[in-house]
Amino acid sequence: MNPSAVIFDAYGTLFDVASVAAACTAVTSEPEALVGLWRAKQLEYSFVRSLMGPAAYADFWTITADALDFAAEKLGLNLSPADRNRALQGWLEVQPYPEVKSTLDLLASDGRRCVILSNGSPSMLDAALTSAGIAERFHAVLSVDAVRIFKPHPRVYQLALDALATPPAELLFISSNGWDAAGARAFGLPVGWVNRTAAPLERLGFAPDIVLADLSALPPLLVVDAG
Amino acid sequence: MNPSAVIFDAYGTLFDVASVAAACTAVTSEPEALVGLWRAKQLEYSFVRSLMGPAAYADFWTITADALDFAAEKLGLNLSPADRNRALQGWLEVQPYPEVKSTLDLLASDGRRCVILSNGSPSMLDAALTSAGIAERFHAVLSVDAVRIFKPHPRVYQLALDALATPPAELLFISSNGWDAAGARAFGLPVGWVNRTAAPLERLGFAPDIVLADLSALPPLLVVDAG
Repeated sequence: MNPSAVIFDAYGTLFDVASVAAACTAVTSEPEALVGLWRAKQLEYSFVRSLMGPAAYADFWTITADALDFAAEKLGLNLSPADRNRALQGWLEVQPYPEVKSTLDLLASDGRRCVILSNGSPSMLDAALTSAGIAERFHAVLSVDAVRIFKPHPRVYQLALDALATPPAELLFISSNGWDAAGARAFGLPVGWVNRTAAPLERLGFAPDIVLADLSALPPLLVVDAG
Repeated sequence: MNPSAVIFDAYGTLFDVASVAAACTAVTSEPEALVGLWRAKQLEYSFVRSLMGPAAYADFWTITADALDFAAEKLGLNLSPADRNRALQGWLEVQPYPEVKSTLDLLASDGRRCVILSNGSPSMLDAALTSAGIAERFHAVLSVDAVRIFKPHPRVYQLALDALATPPAELLFISSNGWDAAGARAFGLPVGWVNRTAAPLERLGFAPDIVLADLSALPPLLVVDAG
């Protein structure tokens, strides 16, 4: 495997969203229940709005706020506007996983372009990249907002192909989300699934080409051109 | 509101899926964890495969079995083939909610056609209708399998329109799933959301026209033609 460019998912793949859990701890005594329900709803809303069609699209920041409001009401939490903002702020304060910077350095030193392809809205991604201190390391930061539909719709993966102007076989897509890995594989991209939690493989009919315990396992797997 | 036909979602709307929980109790000492994860994955797989495109379609029975396998592995349960079959069997042994038969009788006596529009595969729906003893009460039983994509994609709701050959304004769609109610509303159908659990309204931008504590609340809301 010798990709000329590597396409990364953002949240959960490059960015540890522990900052979201930390923000929830600041606003409720049951942060685990809130984070769990919030993230599940955020994902569900992205899928459901995508299936409903173009008129139902709302960007990821809106969906994230909507999912928080649902989760808080479901749990009987009466979040003040300040607490609501504090919780949402968690998405803007993410940090990279420990191995991210060294992995990106190694990929760059081998001449591989790195891009981000994320459900996040452009302003969320800007804030996250600044917070994580890795903004300059990417050739491009691609948001689904450009096509107004969320992963795993094929139009999203096509965005990366168009931006890189490179055949799929010369690319590699990396995600920690099993459904995102399957979606990219179904689209026709070579895929690496980052499985930090030893989760079972998703039964979606499209298995990843490689499975990585974390991102540091990636550079040694890639062939370096001689010369 | 005076619909000439009422379109019902099946699982959770007409059919109480307590039989699935009961089947899980027979195969594991932690049935609640299994049922919760199983149903969440079943839904996720239906959304994800629908977004991935036609080549990723698998029918609801396949998805249901795949979701069970994922959930069992995630929970460290080693289900024997017999236990796996027992758990799956729960989906074929559903019963109607207590008010279903009397509601269907009232709707029929007012001359309204009743149809089912479900993610379930045709054979799952056949078994469920027989188990619940309500097979003869429906003008049509429509499975998404005919269009090979799951709710809430518009093609699914179009199936009901085509089968009934009736303008949307003369129909009423009923579901207990907030995302399904929103999907039908986005498509353009009048919608009643059955909210048996006092759940919060989903934040999806398309609110139901009416909210029902259970199906018995429906017939009194409908106008009966004089004559």
